[in-house]
Amino acid sequence: MKKRILIDMDEVIADIYPKFLDIFEQENGWRPQKEDYWGQKIYDALPDAQHLRSYLHKPGFFADLPVMPHSQEVIQELMEHYEVFINSAAMEFPNSLKDKYDWLQRHFAFFPWRNVVFCGDKRVLKGDYMIDDHVKNLQCFTGVPLMFTATHNAFETAYTRMNNWQEIRQFFAERAGE
Amino acid sequence: MKKRILIDMDEVIADIYPKFLDIFEQENGWRPQKEDYWGQKIYDALPDAQHLRSYLHKPGFFADLPVMPHSQEVIQELMEHYEVFINSAAMEFPNSLKDKYDWLQRHFAFFPWRNVVFCGDKRVLKGDYMIDDHVKNLQCFTGVPLMFTATHNAFETAYTRMNNWQEIRQFFAERAGE
Repeated sequence: MKKRILIDMDEVIADIYPKFLDIFEQENGWRPQKEDYWGQKIYDALPDAQHLRSYLHKPGFFADLPVMPHSQEVIQELMEHYEVFINSAAMEFPNSLKDKYDWLQRHFAFFPWRNVVFCGDKRVLKGDYMIDDHVKNLQCFTGVPLMFTATHNAFETAYTRMNNWQEIRQFFAERAGE
Repeated sequence: MKKRILIDMDEVIADIYPKFLDIFEQENGWRPQKEDYWGQKIYDALPDAQHLRSYLHKPGFFADLPVMPHSQEVIQELMEHYEVFINSAAMEFPNSLKDKYDWLQRHFAFFPWRNVVFCGDKRVLKGDYMIDDHVKNLQCFTGVPLMFTATHNAFETAYTRMNNWQEIRQFFAERAGE
C-alpha cells in the first residue's frame, strides 16, 4: 500500500506573501523586504500591519495567489509513488472555501478532488508524512513531520526542514521504493 | 484523552430527502411514499428520477435542509465525553461548501469550526467511532463503524445500525466512562 503524504496549502503550495506585500505597499507607499519581517508573521513584524490579517477573511483573497515554484511538478511526481492529500485549515476562513477549491482546479487540475481536505484542526488527519508550515499541525502528527520554511517558522529547529519544493523532491527521491 | 467520534452530515444530521420529494412532487404531481423507494436511492428507485441527483450540484441545495431529529441535543451531550468531528464528503459538490458551513453555523451554532471537515475520501480521517450512512466510508474505517440508517443502506447487515439519534444516545450512554 502506498504511503500517504499530507500537503498543506497556504505558504506551502500557495504563496500568500506577495499579496500581503502588495496591500502593504499600496497603503504605505513602500514595499517591505524579506529582512523587514523574516522570523515573524508580516502583520506582527511591521508597524500598523495587524489589520492585514483581516484580509484573510475577504472573499477572493485566496483566489489568485501565486503557486509555489515547482510544487505542481513535484506533487505530480510524488503521486506516482505516494498517496497525496492536499489539505488546508480553511474552516477559519469560510469565505475561502470555494476560492481554494477553484484555485486547486485551476493550478492543480491533475489533482483529484477526492484527495482534498478542508478542515479546522489537523489532528483528525491520518498520514505517513505531513508537509506543513505550522508547528501546531506538525507537533500533533503521528507520522513524519516536515516543516516547510515560512517567515513565521524560520527559527524553529525541532523539525526536518524543507526550504523549497526541490528539497522535497530530493527528500522523497532518497526514499524511493519504501 | 477523550475518544473521537466522526459524524457525517448528509442523511445523518441533515435530511436531504424532504427536498428530493418536494422536487419530485413539483415535477410529477405526486409525492412518493417511503415504500416507493426504500432500499435504494430515490433517484435510482423512481421512474425518470435520475436527474434529481444533479440538484446536489446546485448552489443553495444544502442551505436549507431540515435537521435530523434530536441530532443537535445528542451531539451536545456527546461533546461532554467525546471529541466530536462533523465531516462531509463535500468536495464532490464544491457549490455546497459554503452552504454546508453556513448550515452548521445556523443549526449547530454550539459546534466549533475547528472540528468541521470537508473532504472527498474519508480514509484520511482518524477516529474511534464513525457514524455514517455509506458503506464505502465505514468499510475503510479502522475504528468502530456505526451505520446510520438511510434508504440506500436499508438492507446492509454488516454494521451496527443506528436508526435514529436516540439510538446513538443510548449506544454511547452504555459506554459511559470508557
